[in-house]
Amino acid sequence: MTTVLPNLPLSTLTETRSPNQQLLPLTAKINDADRLEIGGCDVVELVKQYGSPLYIVDEVTLRTACQQYRDAFKHYYKGASQVLYASKAWNCLAICAIAASEGLGIDVVSGGELYTAIKAGVKPELLYLHGNNKSLDELEYALNAGCTVVADNWWELHTLNRLATDFGIPPQIMLRITPGIECHTHEYIRTGHLDSKFGFDPNDIDAVLEFVAKSQLNCIGLHAHIGSQIFELQPHKDIGQVMVQWFKSARNEYGLHLTELNIGGGLGIRYTESDDPPTIEAWVQAVCDGVTAAFESHGLPLPKLLCEPGRSLVGTSCITAYTIGSSKTVPGVRTYICVDGGMSDNPRPITYQAQYRAVVANRMTANADLLVTVAGKHCESGDILLKDIYLPQTEPGDVLVVSATGAYNYSMASNYNRLPKIAAVLVQDREANLILKRETYQDLIRQDCLPSRLKF
Amino acid sequence: MTTVLPNLPLSTLTETRSPNQQLLPLTAKINDADRLEIGGCDVVELVKQYGSPLYIVDEVTLRTACQQYRDAFKHYYKGASQVLYASKAWNCLAICAIAASEGLGIDVVSGGELYTAIKAGVKPELLYLHGNNKSLDELEYALNAGCTVVADNWWELHTLNRLATDFGIPPQIMLRITPGIECHTHEYIRTGHLDSKFGFDPNDIDAVLEFVAKSQLNCIGLHAHIGSQIFELQPHKDIGQVMVQWFKSARNEYGLHLTELNIGGGLGIRYTESDDPPTIEAWVQAVCDGVTAAFESHGLPLPKLLCEPGRSLVGTSCITAYTIGSSKTVPGVRTYICVDGGMSDNPRPITYQAQYRAVVANRMTANADLLVTVAGKHCESGDILLKDIYLPQTEPGDVLVVSATGAYNYSMASNYNRLPKIAAVLVQDREANLILKRETYQDLIRQDCLPSRLKF
Repeated sequence: MTTVLPNLPLSTLTETRSPNQQLLPLTAKINDADRLEIGGCDVVELVKQYGSPLYIVDEVTLRTACQQYRDAFKHYYKGASQVLYASKAWNCLAICAIAASEGLGIDVVSGGELYTAIKAGVKPELLYLHGNNKSLDELEYALNAGCTVVADNWWELHTLNRLATDFGIPPQIMLRITPGIECHTHEYIRTGHLDSKFGFDPNDIDAVLEFVAKSQLNCIGLHAHIGSQIFELQPHKDIGQVMVQWFKSARNEYGLHLTELNIGGGLGIRYTESDDPPTIEAWVQAVCDGVTAAFESHGLPLPKLLCEPGRSLVGTSCITAYTIGSSKTVPGVRTYICVDGGMSDNPRPITYQAQYRAVVANRMTANADLLVTVAGKHCESGDILLKDIYLPQTEPGDVLVVSATGAYNYSMASNYNRLPKIAAVLVQDREANLILKRETYQDLIRQDCLPSRLKF
Repeated sequence: MTTVLPNLPLSTLTETRSPNQQLLPLTAKINDADRLEIGGCDVVELVKQYGSPLYIVDEVTLRTACQQYRDAFKHYYKGASQVLYASKAWNCLAICAIAASEGLGIDVVSGGELYTAIKAGVKPELLYLHGNNKSLDELEYALNAGCTVVADNWWELHTLNRLATDFGIPPQIMLRITPGIECHTHEYIRTGHLDSKFGFDPNDIDAVLEFVAKSQLNCIGLHAHIGSQIFELQPHKDIGQVMVQWFKSARNEYGLHLTELNIGGGLGIRYTESDDPPTIEAWVQAVCDGVTAAFESHGLPLPKLLCEPGRSLVGTSCITAYTIGSSKTVPGVRTYICVDGGMSDNPRPITYQAQYRAVVANRMTANADLLVTVAGKHCESGDILLKDIYLPQTEPGDVLVVSATGAYNYSMASNYNRLPKIAAVLVQDREANLILKRETYQDLIRQDCLPSRLKF
């Protein structure tokens, strides 16, 4: 019933696909109607049923990434390990529940993310709360929930220590440290260099460890995160060497037996055919090798190793389907093809100049020989989803699919121009389940109040 | 009871304030407790009552800007005029209702904005629907509501003409034309140059006018918009000269007696003391002079003149109050002061590298002698609200006020990191009215569905 084209996505789960093919989820196929199928579901039919635009999450791709992380740690690391999903990439009930069902914990960065993870059924011992400026409410909520708090700064340490008295049992914390490791990624998402709002400055570590040793806090380990969408392995390999020194001084100078090391996330994904990220396995191996070598060379027991992938877990599992509407040709300059979404459902192009790739879901084998620019429907010139890409000839009503939209799309979505937030479906084995309902016009004004003196 | 400092905002409505003072709303004062007051309300008390962060809209500033536009057109233009509020700057029930109560119409750019304006009580004849890719649903909704549609492209013209049959009466439309006028502003918000997704290319105008003349459409005029946050007057003065040629050919060659000219918006505002935008009056005068001269020189009757200010109506009327939490000093590099909001309530710094200014609402007369960087609470290095600004010494719990946040803050707000959208109050004459309720954690998952097979 389905044909797999040589130059397009296949159904195999081993990654032998070409760079082009790897832009789409693992279950991508082309069916006899020349249409894209994901998880056995015809994308054009999904749009008819659930509306447009539509996020479509391939469960197989998401679960495969979870398994690859989990299994690679088992293979390459002699100590205990725990993969945490960095849910800021896409925090919602269904995605959290899938990650947790694969044995992953959840890294949350706000009370709202924590609330969602708890509602998704994630166990408190697998929850870690991050953030450079957690509120008192968030800290209390986390401690009440039994979540580990990754302490980021002095204000938090003092506040947590004060709360320790109220909570009877010592709050379980980790310490986030800015490791001073440079890596190559967008300035906005680079966190490991010293000029970062996150974590304790290395100069402060001695004072922090001394404070913690005398505090009522149960500090179980250290955390570092160097950034996001990183293609190099060396910085992640280096983290172990940087962190082990503080494990050693914690033990030798302050009597703190730290048992957990969280090396953050940061593995990049393929947004375009020219992106060439390491595999999940290669990344995990680099991390494990680095940490093992560092701790063994210092004669320290291997820590429980945690990491926090977000983008590389969920990014490629999702596509966004749009419907093509109007178009405009500026003679000698460019042709604009307009879709029914844009910067409200995917703010990454306007925010980070992020590049994406797209296919036309109902013309999968047509020649992509027209150079066009795909614009969103927002009243803003910068609302361009894809600049200068090749697509087949299209017409209004065609379904355009943008790939690799799982990370930082829904999570950063807005209601700009009062566009309702779009729906999301989860597909697997020819079945689709709604995981995010589309907002209605009524939803847009649900927070609005009109003082009576303004009614006329 | 209140003291007005020589170097700080006053309560007078005539703009004799210094550049620094002009960053805050017109009613800004400092009270005996050394705190900022807006609309007679103590900002620190507002935060205690309505929570933090909080948008605070000064009704006097907003109404004054509406009146300045309205009155300037009456003064400088001999023909009829109508100011439309470009509600994409901040579309909600209360702001739309205030603009409408000042006699303004509303420019909407989506079905959601149209829905909101209608719910706010705005009359259909004062509603104009924009957009480069309106959906069929939006076009039908607009025609049903009796709203004028500003047709942007061929697809829309053909669709509207087809709908004309269904609607019995001819749809009332205007034509948006890309005028080919260059101006100096951020690339993302520049719309008048030829390489724009908006409007008909000048090369197409003859064909468009011919189509309209033979159609069932009631075309009442032409529209052009050259961009946003513009400080030059000349481009706006030039619009009349560019547009009049098409009014003339519409009349002489196609028998179309167009009566309305909409010259868009675009007047910039003061975000920092170094910004020096023209006054509303100067902008209106330039536009009116340009249009009058152009139409008189061609012997054409003056059109009804419409304009669409957004930012310059609502921008300076609002401040955002945050609570200061943690801080971090990177020795020799910078000090980060962290607040409880960020890129979710104000995405302009990360999206457009927009600059803002801030004061500490509970230390208004303290010397601002510390160079700091104000970071938001989002798990993202780029979540910096104000880079390298001078503030007084602060401590956790202080209230930081960022000025000029009325435009493109709430309207572009997201739930990134699952932060609930923040509340907004409208202040006037010592009274505060809630106009946007703060979202709760429960609200964050109201669109979420958890398929039963994922529950565990």
